[in-house]
Amino acid sequence: MIQPSGVISLTTDFGLEDPFVGCVKAVIAARAPGLRVIDLTHGVRPQAIDEASFWLARAYRYFPSGTVHVAVVDPGVGSARRLLACAADGHLFLAPDNGLLAPFLGLEGAEVRSVSSQTIAAYGLQPPSNTFHGRDIFAPLAAVLASGKLLVSDTGPQCRDPVPGNLDVPVMAPGQVQGRVVAADRFGNLLTNIDAAMLGDWRELVVLVNGLEVDFVRTYAEAEEGALVALVNAFGVVELARRNGRASGTDGLDRGALVRVCRVGG
Amino acid sequence: MIQPSGVISLTTDFGLEDPFVGCVKAVIAARAPGLRVIDLTHGVRPQAIDEASFWLARAYRYFPSGTVHVAVVDPGVGSARRLLACAADGHLFLAPDNGLLAPFLGLEGAEVRSVSSQTIAAYGLQPPSNTFHGRDIFAPLAAVLASGKLLVSDTGPQCRDPVPGNLDVPVMAPGQVQGRVVAADRFGNLLTNIDAAMLGDWRELVVLVNGLEVDFVRTYAEAEEGALVALVNAFGVVELARRNGRASGTDGLDRGALVRVCRVGG
Amino acid sequence: MIQPSGVISLTTDFGLEDPFVGCVKAVIAARAPGLRVIDLTHGVRPQAIDEASFWLARAYRYFPSGTVHVAVVDPGVGSARRLLACAADGHLFLAPDNGLLAPFLGLEGAEVRSVSSQTIAAYGLQPPSNTFHGRDIFAPLAAVLASGKLLVSDTGPQCRDPVPGNLDVPVMAPGQVQGRVVAADRFGNLLTNIDAAMLGDWRELVVLVNGLEVDFVRTYAEAEEGALVALVNAFGVVELARRNGRASGTDGLDRGALVRVCRVGG
Repeated sequence: MIQPSGVISLTTDFGLEDPFVGCVKAVIAARAPGLRVIDLTHGVRPQAIDEASFWLARAYRYFPSGTVHVAVVDPGVGSARRLLACAADGHLFLAPDNGLLAPFLGLEGAEVRSVSSQTIAAYGLQPPSNTFHGRDIFAPLAAVLASGKLLVSDTGPQCRDPVPGNLDVPVMAPGQVQGRVVAADRFGNLLTNIDAAMLGDWRELVVLVNGLEVDFVRTYAEAEEGALVALVNAFGVVELARRNGRASGTDGLDRGALVRVCRVGG
Repeated sequence: MIQPSGVISLTTDFGLEDPFVGCVKAVIAARAPGLRVIDLTHGVRPQAIDEASFWLARAYRYFPSGTVHVAVVDPGVGSARRLLACAADGHLFLAPDNGLLAPFLGLEGAEVRSVSSQTIAAYGLQPPSNTFHGRDIFAPLAAVLASGKLLVSDTGPQCRDPVPGNLDVPVMAPGQVQGRVVAADRFGNLLTNIDAAMLGDWRELVVLVNGLEVDFVRTYAEAEEGALVALVNAFGVVELARRNGRASGTDGLDRGALVRVCRVGG
Repeated sequence: MIQPSGVISLTTDFGLEDPFVGCVKAVIAARAPGLRVIDLTHGVRPQAIDEASFWLARAYRYFPSGTVHVAVVDPGVGSARRLLACAADGHLFLAPDNGLLAPFLGLEGAEVRSVSSQTIAAYGLQPPSNTFHGRDIFAPLAAVLASGKLLVSDTGPQCRDPVPGNLDVPVMAPGQVQGRVVAADRFGNLLTNIDAAMLGDWRELVVLVNGLEVDFVRTYAEAEEGALVALVNAFGVVELARRNGRASGTDGLDRGALVRVCRVGG
């Protein structure tokens, strides 16, 4: 059993301009005053389940173990889509059953539950709205999970058929890995789904993208002013960056672009 | 008497790019270390008192009772405008006397005080600046109210002539209610000032806006791709939305638009 | 010795759209659960060291004494640039050695240390990434400094040659001070580096900027609708503002503009 840390992380596409995140935190504070809430990000592009999935998978391990990670990117809100509660790798996860939690559901020892309507009725706001389950269902459920009043194993029946994830999986071939740009950050860096581990012990690398050949560097500071380069970033994936400039939106580069990392000499 | 919960909510037009909100929180932490601060929103359009008023009225009830709600949209900062402290419906409110608190001042049992210059001198930063009362006056006053060191009833004399609110009030006629779009959210949804309660037990509804006839649905998921629809949203008001698209900025729709909800058959 | 307050302030150019700030807070929570983190701002323009320096210098005093101020605007991340830990004026500071902390290093009694590689190895995440020292080094170091487990004096050797600041220093001449716009805020106000103290007891002032003569007022409310005015703002510096409008982006005004404050009559 995972001991809750009293920390809740939030990952949503709510943005920070509107009062949505504030209402989620209000409900958590009203239900369980002692918890701490950390925003992982609310800047996921509207309805981009794959982006939320990517970031949560890359970031959850930096939180205290026993953190309840609430992720709400929920195009199906108000429909009959299920809610999943999952315990995996020492962390707890709560999200709609739409593929968002795919990176965790298959981890060794993962426990995956479909939150029952009884659990929702017992802990959710009554009556829940049709359009804002982040506030009315996810927030109060997270509060009871994070304060240890409800166990993942008591949230509902085991779920054996979760909706599969929609994050592209890179394709490996001898001497190369082909992946895709899955996110762009504030600095115009482009993050791919290519995990550094897929590159094994390759030493000399080159990246092909949009007909360009891009050099691999170790840090931004190694790159020449204005040059497009590739590097393994702080989240362990291949990233395209431009020294003192933006990679995204230049040379036709943006989310979705195909990226091939090749071993020099094949 | 309302027992403070130790929570302060903040609603402002300060935005999050600049250090203004950080300074408000710094002063609260310096004055009363044990309090928790929750941002309701700092994305109110600059000086849009009605928008702050709308959101606070729709969201305050999700906070723990005894929360001190600080709302600073303050075009008159530095002039002689008064500050109001109000206790109503189990919550505490602090804002400039410019109509922002209108939804609360008339609630049954509401206590409304004009914060005296002695109170400001006793608790505010000395000397307060002329342009940033959020930091210099509202923050330290909120800290003493939220930690129970100052009661609303001790902040100053009763205020019997607060500045009236400037939120449009919908007009009711047999079989219809005419209101207005008062806010837009990140998803391009348009929120009106028409409370669902005004629609009574009407079953079949249609919305007229900008010459368009718009169908009523129960959830976003019920709408057809790209269709403009109306629904009662999670804050209990009529909202215009476009399934997997934006309502705002399309079909000439935006804040201020007149919206009529009509009972089908009159 | 400065007693830590348990508060950490964050000033970065990370923005709030991406999960970077969330990861920093995650690491702090994982290392020291009892601390509180306050965002001063994450809206510093990318790599604008001078802007971060300006805001931190103007805002730190509003935090509880004993606050650990972490400032990460770090174009040299991954290169051999040093990290500085500084104790000054009752506060603690942690930042790259790139001029950001210049306003504090020269304060009376300031203690300035170059954080040793042993300290980084002892407290940082292992291995640190090459591109995200905010999460891997600054966050865990801030956690141990703020919880009193590490003293500034134990972080490394004294640093006698820190990189100088790159904030413009105003030029004083008889009857005038010439400075520069160093920041713009959400409201389009333009903040200069001219401290009110430089104006001594001058009574009648006029500001010259881009060939315009601008009147000095005491508060925004004193200005006429649409008029460009100058005032001493809440951070103690001369600011250009337009009543119910934006100063930035109009009349060719923006960051970098030369501003002369002149005593009327010379």
